[in-house]
Order: sequence, then structure tokens, then C-alpha cells
Amino acid sequence: MTTVAIIGGGGYTAVELIKILLRHPQAKITALTSLGETRQVGAVHQSLVGRLDLTFEEFTPQEIASRAECVFCCLPHVASATVVPTLLQCGAKVIDLGADYRLNSAETFETWYEAKHPDPARLGKVPYGLPELFRNKIIGADLIANPGCYPTSAILPLVPLLRSGWVEPTDIIIDSKSGVSGGGRTPKLLTLYPECNESILAYGIGTHRHTPEIEQILSTGSGQSVKVIFTPHLTPMDRGILTVTYSKPAKAASQGELLAVLREFYRDEPFVHVVEHLPATKDVSGTNFVHLTVRLTGGRVLTVSVVDNLIKGASGAAVQNFNLMFGYPETTALI
Amino acid sequence: MTTVAIIGGGGYTAVELIKILLRHPQAKITALTSLGETRQVGAVHQSLVGRLDLTFEEFTPQEIASRAECVFCCLPHVASATVVPTLLQCGAKVIDLGADYRLNSAETFETWYEAKHPDPARLGKVPYGLPELFRNKIIGADLIANPGCYPTSAILPLVPLLRSGWVEPTDIIIDSKSGVSGGGRTPKLLTLYPECNESILAYGIGTHRHTPEIEQILSTGSGQSVKVIFTPHLTPMDRGILTVTYSKPAKAASQGELLAVLREFYRDEPFVHVVEHLPATKDVSGTNFVHLTVRLTGGRVLTVSVVDNLIKGASGAAVQNFNLMFGYPETTALI
Amino acid sequence: MTTVAIIGGGGYTAVELIKILLRHPQAKITALTSLGETRQVGAVHQSLVGRLDLTFEEFTPQEIASRAECVFCCLPHVASATVVPTLLQCGAKVIDLGADYRLNSAETFETWYEAKHPDPARLGKVPYGLPELFRNKIIGADLIANPGCYPTSAILPLVPLLRSGWVEPTDIIIDSKSGVSGGGRTPKLLTLYPECNESILAYGIGTHRHTPEIEQILSTGSGQSVKVIFTPHLTPMDRGILTVTYSKPAKAASQGELLAVLREFYRDEPFVHVVEHLPATKDVSGTNFVHLTVRLTGGRVLTVSVVDNLIKGASGAAVQNFNLMFGYPETTALI
Amino acid sequence: MTTVAIIGGGGYTAVELIKILLRHPQAKITALTSLGETRQVGAVHQSLVGRLDLTFEEFTPQEIASRAECVFCCLPHVASATVVPTLLQCGAKVIDLGADYRLNSAETFETWYEAKHPDPARLGKVPYGLPELFRNKIIGADLIANPGCYPTSAILPLVPLLRSGWVEPTDIIIDSKSGVSGGGRTPKLLTLYPECNESILAYGIGTHRHTPEIEQILSTGSGQSVKVIFTPHLTPMDRGILTVTYSKPAKAASQGELLAVLREFYRDEPFVHVVEHLPATKDVSGTNFVHLTVRLTGGRVLTVSVVDNLIKGASGAAVQNFNLMFGYPETTALI
Repeated sequence: MTTVAIIGGGGYTAVELIKILLRHPQAKITALTSLGETRQVGAVHQSLVGRLDLTFEEFTPQEIASRAECVFCCLPHVASATVVPTLLQCGAKVIDLGADYRLNSAETFETWYEAKHPDPARLGKVPYGLPELFRNKIIGADLIANPGCYPTSAILPLVPLLRSGWVEPTDIIIDSKSGVSGGGRTPKLLTLYPECNESILAYGIGTHRHTPEIEQILSTGSGQSVKVIFTPHLTPMDRGILTVTYSKPAKAASQGELLAVLREFYRDEPFVHVVEHLPATKDVSGTNFVHLTVRLTGGRVLTVSVVDNLIKGASGAAVQNFNLMFGYPETTALI
Repeated sequence: MTTVAIIGGGGYTAVELIKILLRHPQAKITALTSLGETRQVGAVHQSLVGRLDLTFEEFTPQEIASRAECVFCCLPHVASATVVPTLLQCGAKVIDLGADYRLNSAETFETWYEAKHPDPARLGKVPYGLPELFRNKIIGADLIANPGCYPTSAILPLVPLLRSGWVEPTDIIIDSKSGVSGGGRTPKLLTLYPECNESILAYGIGTHRHTPEIEQILSTGSGQSVKVIFTPHLTPMDRGILTVTYSKPAKAASQGELLAVLREFYRDEPFVHVVEHLPATKDVSGTNFVHLTVRLTGGRVLTVSVVDNLIKGASGAAVQNFNLMFGYPETTALI
Repeated sequence: MTTVAIIGGGGYTAVELIKILLRHPQAKITALTSLGETRQVGAVHQSLVGRLDLTFEEFTPQEIASRAECVFCCLPHVASATVVPTLLQCGAKVIDLGADYRLNSAETFETWYEAKHPDPARLGKVPYGLPELFRNKIIGADLIANPGCYPTSAILPLVPLLRSGWVEPTDIIIDSKSGVSGGGRTPKLLTLYPECNESILAYGIGTHRHTPEIEQILSTGSGQSVKVIFTPHLTPMDRGILTVTYSKPAKAASQGELLAVLREFYRDEPFVHVVEHLPATKDVSGTNFVHLTVRLTGGRVLTVSVVDNLIKGASGAAVQNFNLMFGYPETTALI
Repeated sequence: MTTVAIIGGGGYTAVELIKILLRHPQAKITALTSLGETRQVGAVHQSLVGRLDLTFEEFTPQEIASRAECVFCCLPHVASATVVPTLLQCGAKVIDLGADYRLNSAETFETWYEAKHPDPARLGKVPYGLPELFRNKIIGADLIANPGCYPTSAILPLVPLLRSGWVEPTDIIIDSKSGVSGGGRTPKLLTLYPECNESILAYGIGTHRHTPEIEQILSTGSGQSVKVIFTPHLTPMDRGILTVTYSKPAKAASQGELLAVLREFYRDEPFVHVVEHLPATKDVSGTNFVHLTVRLTGGRVLTVSVVDNLIKGASGAAVQNFNLMFGYPETTALI
């Protein structure tokens, strides 16, 4: 049994995480925090009424570390890297669901997040929590940078093709469509129901913060410098991300060969399914699964992949990492 | 040609009103206000880009009245009754889309709206802007209390049956389901997309402010004291209200007779269609029409009615009243 | 370990059932059938790709019974009662998710379902699979009539109040709102996306087949003859049912007393949570939980309850019954 | 006053067309047909109850031409080109909302539509009904090929940039997201509510029939051979198309210059608004407007455009063409 705490527990990521952990036979939630929140968990998240007898409290990092062997951080950027050093020092392992430890360079962080990084010394040493690419590093780690939702959907189909030299590392276009839960639980006009219902829009063209994360992991994962154009969309649905990528073949290829490359790469992965049909986000909704496929058309290689942004794109991946870090079967609580 | 102004122009009611008025050959929008708003109309409502060359400005009521023969007030309660007296004094006619002039009694207003009424002397003298019941009073009026959305959907099917004595005036249950635009454009958790999408809930049981309005107009409209239980619901759709009412037959009746009563009552009404099938809100979406029908089952009379909460439930009705007040054909801009 | 088969596996109920059973440590799915269907399960339900290595096959009841200790029937009415006798005879236990064994009287069945019942001798002897009311009968049973979705949502809040005499057994109004998955997976105009999206409608007033089921179980469950008016609605969401009931207090009561009656009744139930706030269907979406509350207003007792129509309203309840019948902890695979 | 008929009047395109024509002061609908349909229009389209006193009838083309000066064809491919020759011969003008007369080559038609073209002699001589590009040809025409919905959304932002040599004519990627009404009103699994609600998917990659139409008009409109990759998506909303295009700059350009090119091109167009912000489909929902903008990022020119697939993408454009063909102001009934 492992004791766990969730800090930043007031949002959509946290409530999904709590639900997964409630199904985990070896995890026990012992503490929950959220800035200024002191209500019962069921008052903050009505779907948890009667399922978890905990109250949001204000804790110091020291106290949390004394109650929990593993801390899941669901904090905004900068906030996370402000408390993580203390948590680690006090002996807790940490899975950071935010962006603070994903990028290798403090300079890149400061450019895209417009803030000074509070813990720059650790950057570049924290495993990126995508077990399909970095499982061995995750197993022994004390701190994991849990991937962003868009990056997960884009990296998984592209890395196998890049790594084996089937597609060019430049002029890659990533066109992603996300459900609205990705926009968080803080009320704002953009995500008000009558604004985004029955409507789709593109946003953050050229400026979305997942761009450097995608480029870095595609580069690390494939051993070459990769550049992308990334266009996210806000889609009228709660959850799910569909990502279409467009890249150039680096050598003569058939669609069948490309599909075989993906199949071989993910043959033993429990959560990645390479399919022949074009997948829909609903196929993986509420699960930790990824469905992906490839097409060759008009002189371009297209990949199509779907994930649930709150599960494989956030809390499911976090528990997958938790399982690896604490020696539980990787799929525990995730099937 | 009539000059019109809209005060409180930042919300969903106002944008619908502007769109209807843009189709009106005899109305010219000359001024728009919204608290603290000074942007171009297209910056506030992107759907109006290029359609209307106006900027939100801060005006005094005097200035507005000097620019507009008719002022549409889309203000929160109390705010409306604070400026209306000046607007009237300066010679403008006013259609108030808020609640301030709907109730006849300042005391009832203060009980339900928890605020002192700023203009109690006018209460009880302002026509309720439901032309199907009060057309003659509307025609000559300077000030109209435009009906609430839920009340419109409940009053139209019930008044004919109450007035002619087919149903009892007590123990009437009104179960209404509204789209989320009824919750307004101010960001709040209740109407955030991921909160209310894929979910329905009942709210305001026993406390919704449309309750006394429904009871008053059903009483006025039928000549007897009527009491109701009113249960509104927030439904995952932008717009539309479906209202089911349950009342007791006051005398032996067949379903056909009840249907005939409704048909006769609305025979010449351009916007009310009595149908045999069970209507859906989509049947009237984006229009000023009302579809309604009646069923007799289990010893109860049920009516089912649908309106678009933003059109017949707000801005369409306002323009219908405008047409009556200024002598234009009643359906102008509304077909 | 218990071997299970699902017959009628092509619809929404079946796919939910399969997902729950895949999480069940003591259930092993050994056979799947669907009329005329011979594809791999992942081709029929894309969300099951890679999760279950089974192919739809045509079986005789005898073969199915030889492969499965428990058979879940997800068949249309009449079809179920045609095969169940053989399944039982061959030694399988059966959980029927259809309507064939819910009503006690063949005559009532024939009136509402307009078909002759193929197995009338069993009617009245089959436990109704609502463990909260009939747990002891379920434990030893060979055949269970799994409840309808609407009935579950209406019976649970009403039985405690009826049984203890707080509300009158007549003049009960049940106004229910269901997601579209309740309409099944066979393409038809009524449930085509552009028809029911952004729209709500009432249907089946006075004719819905769940009416006699609700009346029978309310009567059985409370020991008196109960009559209801039942109005279902098609709501633009995938899943969930919200039911509001209106009944008359049978004696002087306060809201607090009524709430206490419900709390006491469901004190030890793992899946029923009595809450003070007004619940939303999303609070229980994807779960086997029921949230319910009560209000006293305008001389009427109102209850408000929410269930997921596909889980507690169908497949979750079926697994809850399975757990009871086969001696597993009741909440296995359902948290 | 012009008499008009609609053949193939049972679908979503037709009902929108009827609603627009009901607002048109110079159009009178005199006949409606739909294969095998003989009901009142309000029985087929409940939103038209009480608004139009017509019954679907079976007509010969000769009879229709005798009743209507203009015939709107909303028929499936091949069906249209089977009746159009007779309609023209009998003196009617025809606006074909289907695909039969859009392509210039019978061979291309047969490749993509897998059917022999019934009227090949006319191909290449029928104006493509996009007034923004071909207004002069439309004015004097007897037959118009009304554009496809996706093509309209892709052609309008690209033609100005292609024509003036700002972007390369090859390696253009078009990523489009459409509402479900584009899938038609015939019930099928793909567009059943619980299948496509809360889900997005890509479809028809490399095979969608709008591909050759887009390539042909981009080529005609810009005077050079243009090739595209086209990826359509089914988005969980009723209506609207958002199209993002990715093309390569053909010469050094700034974002401001590209925006100025679009602004200049559409300066006098009543329905095309070039905006600076990223538009949402809701901004033009229910209207004949197009909002579009351009971005320069990562060495690619991106355009983002939105249309209502049923209005500017079908019936609104048809009425715009009707206005031009019959000498009415182009915006009549469309504001």
C-alpha cells in the first residue's frame, strides 16, 4: 500500500485522478489541497459524494510529505516547481502533472511561459513520463514530468516514424482538436457553455506552450532536431483529443509498411493500439488507451491518433507512472 | 423609420435583439451601451463583425433618449427601474426585457428579488408584453414589461384552459427545461462548458423568480387566483425551453375538446401554432414561434409547449411589442 | 472465476457490460452473440479494440449454456423469453436486461408490449434485480429481471416515502429526462444527431412501457396500489437520467424529516447517496451510483434523482446482481 | 415575384432553403417534391408547421417547370443531371445544389463519383455558383452549379493568395471540421447521436469527393494547376465548417501583407469579412457570412475560415445565386 496526496485538487485533472486512485488496490489517498479550499471533497466535486471521506486542507509541503509517499502535483506552472524541491527533500516521490519539469532548458521555459523557473537546476534531469518511450528512466525516478495532453497525442504516432527514418524531421504539421475540459475549471468567457457549444475554433497558432514540448520530445525520442507547426482547436465536447499530423516521407514507402512500423513499435504496449480504421475520440473516451493509424496520400504521411485528454493525456498517465515508480503492475487501476 | 437604442447590450439577449433589428426595415439602431464597455460592437459580439458600425459608449439616459425613440433595456433587475423613469420623462418609449416592471406589487418584488424597487409607483400599470393576451394594452403603451422566458412557455398553453374553466387553478405543476443561454453571459462555474455539457439538473425549486410572474399572469389572464409549483431545469443545449404542465381537469373533457379550445384561442395568432404531435424545442429554434399541444392521461391534463428562450422568450417578443407600439405589421422582421 | 456470455451484444448496453466485466477479477467472457453478426468484437465496438479477443458467433442456447455459467441477455422483448427457458434448463443462470420478466402478469405484458409472452408460467416468480429492495431474493436466484432505466430512477426515491406512509400512493407524477443512448443503437430518424442535438422533447406520454413496471414495483415495494403519470424526455446528452417526482404528503412533514427517511433507508447501501443539494446527471455519469434528494414545496413532495441509464440503469445493475448471485462482494468491478 | 420549386425537399439543405425563401419578398414557393413523399410539409419538417401551406407531391419535370421559373435541385448525384436537361428545356432556370455540374470533366466525375454522368455535354459550361469569384457568369446563367460546403470554406481564403502569387500552388493541406448536418438526414450509424456526440473523427482522407472540386476551382480561380491534401472531420455540432489551410509562401511575406491581400480582395463583398482574430464557427452560424483570417508561422501560411455549411455552404449561396440570376439585390433574404 502506498499513501498518496494530491495538491491542486480542485480541477478536472484532479477529480479524474482521484477516481482512478479509488479503484487502485494499492493506493490510499491521505491528503488533498487546493488554494483557499477547505470544504469536504464532495462539496468541491459532487461526483465524489460518499466515495472519499476527506476534506481539503491547507498543508505545508513538509506535512504533505509526512503523510504521503507519493505526491501528485496538479498546480499551475511555476507553482509546482516552487514546492517540489521541498517535497523531494522530505522524502516524497513526486509526479508533476504540470509543465514545470517537462522542458530541458530554463531559457525555453522562460520564453514560452513568460516566468522565471524556480528550480532550474533540475531541468534536463527529470524523466518525461511517457512510459512507451522512457519506461526505464521512469522506474527508478523520484520525480516525473507527466506529459501534456496534446504532446502525448502527437508524439506517440510520430516518434516511431521519425526514429526509423521514414519521415522528415522538418515541415511537420500537427493539427489537434481537443475537448473543452482541457481549458480548466476556472470560469472564463472562452469556455462558457453558450460560447463554445455548437462551435469549433482554432487558437494559439504559433504560440501554444505545448509546441516546444512536442519539439523537444520528438527530437529526444528520435535523435534529431525536429520542428513542427502546431494548431490546437477547441472542440464542443467534454474530453478527447484527435491529432492529425502531416509529414513528408523521407524515403519511398507504402501505407502498409508505415502501418507495420507502428505495429511493431507498439506490439507489447498495453495502452497503445495501432488500428487500420480512422479512430474517433470516443473510442478511447474515459480510458488510458491510445488508438492510432497512418495514411499515405498526396505525397504526405498522415497519422491520426486519439486519446482522452484527462486520462492518457493527464491522470491515467500519472497513475501509469505511479505504478512503474512503485513497482505495481503497469496497468493497475487503468483497465 | 424608428430610431432605437439598446442598453445592457453585452449579453445573449442583446445580440439576438440586434440581429432581429438588423433585419427590420423600419428600425435603425443608433446607440448601444454596456457597463464599462467601450469597444466596437464586433469586438464584443464577433458574430456582428461587419454588420453594424457602432461602438459601445457610456451615455446618460437623457442622451440616449435624445438619440432613440425606443429604448430596449437589457439590464439586471433594479438597474432597469433606475433609468426607465428618466428615459420615459425624456420622451422615449421603453421595452424593458428585465423583470422590474412585470410584477404588480412592490412587496412581491422585494420578497423574490431581495431588493427595494426603485420605481414602485409604476407597478401594476405597465402592460405585460405578451401580445397574445394583452395586445390592446401594448399598442398604446410607452413602457412594456417584456415577459420572462419560462413564463411565456407556461402561460400560453395554460391561460386558454384556465380561462374557459377546463382546468383547476390550483395544484398546477410546471416542469420546464431550458437551454444554457438563459443563464447569461457572465462566466460562472454553473454554466461552464464541462460542468453543464452532458448533464441535466433541476434548480431553483420553490425559489425561482419566475414563479410569482407565472402565477400573476395566469391569475390576471384567467380571472382567478392561480397557484403553481415550478421546476426549472438546465439542459445541455444553447437555447430553447420545453415546458410540460400538469393540471387537474375541472370538468369532464376529452383530449380532442382540449385541443380544440387551444386551436380556437390561437386561431388568428401569427406566432402560436397548436399541433397534435409532441413538439421539440428544435422545431422553434431561432424563431418567434410557439408550438404547443395538450394530452389527457391518468386523470391529468398535460400541456407541452416549446419556445426559443432568446427569441419568443426575450428579443423576438420585444420586437413584436415594438411593432405593435410603433404601428408596424406585427410580424415584421420576425418571419 | 465465473464464465459469462452476452447475447444481444451489439448495442450500447452490451458494450458497457463488457467494459465492466473486463474489470471484474472473477468474470471471464467466453461468448458473444448478436443477430447476424460474425465480426471481431473490435469491429463492432471500436472502443473494445485490443481489449477482448472474441468474435461474434451464432450459437444455440445449448452451446451458450455449455460455455457460460451466467448468461446476460440484452435482447429485445419477446426474444429474451424465447431463449431463457432453454438456457435455464441447460444449467445456466440468466440475467435478463430486457423487459420480458419484469412484469408479473402476462396480460399486462401483452397490453403494453403488444405481443404474446413466450414464457408466461415464470412471470411473478422472477426477482426484480434492484438489490436495494430485493437483495435477499436475488442472492439465490437462477433468473433475474434486471430493472428498466427509468424505473430505477423513479423507484429508489419513492419507495422509502411510500412504504413509511409519508406520501400518497395516487396522483404521483414522474417527469424523467434521459440521454439519447436509451434509444438504442439502431439508426433511426428520432435519434439522428442533427434531429436530437440542441433539442429536448417529451415522448410516450401515457404510453411508455416503463409505466406498468414503475407502478408494479412501487406497489410491491410499498405494499399498496400505486398509480403514476409518467413523462419521459429525450435530452441532448449521451447518458444519464434525471427524474423529478411530484407526490402529495400523506401527513404533516418537514423537508428535514423526509430527507431523514431517505437517509435512514439507504444508510448501508453502497451505491445510493442521499444528498442535500440538487444533483446533476453528470455527478453519477459512468458510475453505478444513484444520487437523490427531496424537497417540500407548494404542498407537494418532490424527489430529484440521477442515475447513469447505461450503468445503474442497465449494465452496472446487472453486474451488481451477478455479484450477489455468484457470491462476490457486491461492489466488485463497480467502484 | 418569381415562382420557385424545390426538388429533393426532404433533407436539411431543403428545409434551410425553404426558411430563407419564406423571408424573400420576391420568391414564391409553388412546388415541393421528395422521392415517395406525399405528406404536408409540416409533417416532414416540423419546424415549418403553419408557415407554408404545401404538400409534397410527385411531379414530372415538365409539370415543375410549368409551375416554377426557378427550380432548386437538392438531389443526390446523378439524380440531378437526369432531370436538369428537361427542366432547362421546358424553360426553367435551375440552381443545382448537388455535385453533378461542378466538375468540368465527365471522366473526373466518373472516377470520384463511381457513376456515369447523365449529361456530360454540359460539363465545363456551367458557372460555379460562388459569386465572390464568378459573379458575372452567374448573372446571365440558366443553370448554376452551387458549390460544395467544404470547397466554399477552402476556396475563399486561398484564391486571393494563389492568384496574386503569395503562396505555392502545390503541397497545400486543407484540414476541415464540419458539423454533422453535412452528413444528411438519412439515418445511419455514423451520424446517430450516441455515435458522434462527444466525439470527433477524421474521415475520407484521400477519398473525399470535394477534393477534385477544390482543386479545380482553386486552379480555375488562380490560373494555375493546384493540388491539395484534404482531411475532413465530423465534429459534434449541428452546423458550421472551420477550415485551416497550410500552404508555402511563394515569396517573402509578412502576416500584415497577407491580411491586406485578403482585405483588398473582399473589400466590396457583402458576405465575406476578413478579420484579425481567429474566428469560431458560431460567429457565422445561421448566416450567409464567411469570416476568414491568415497567419504566418513556422514558415507556412495558414488561413482560418468559417462558414455555416447549410447556409453559405449550401442554401444561402443558392439564394445569393438566385438573386443574381433574377436581378434582385444580392443580399435579399440573407441578412
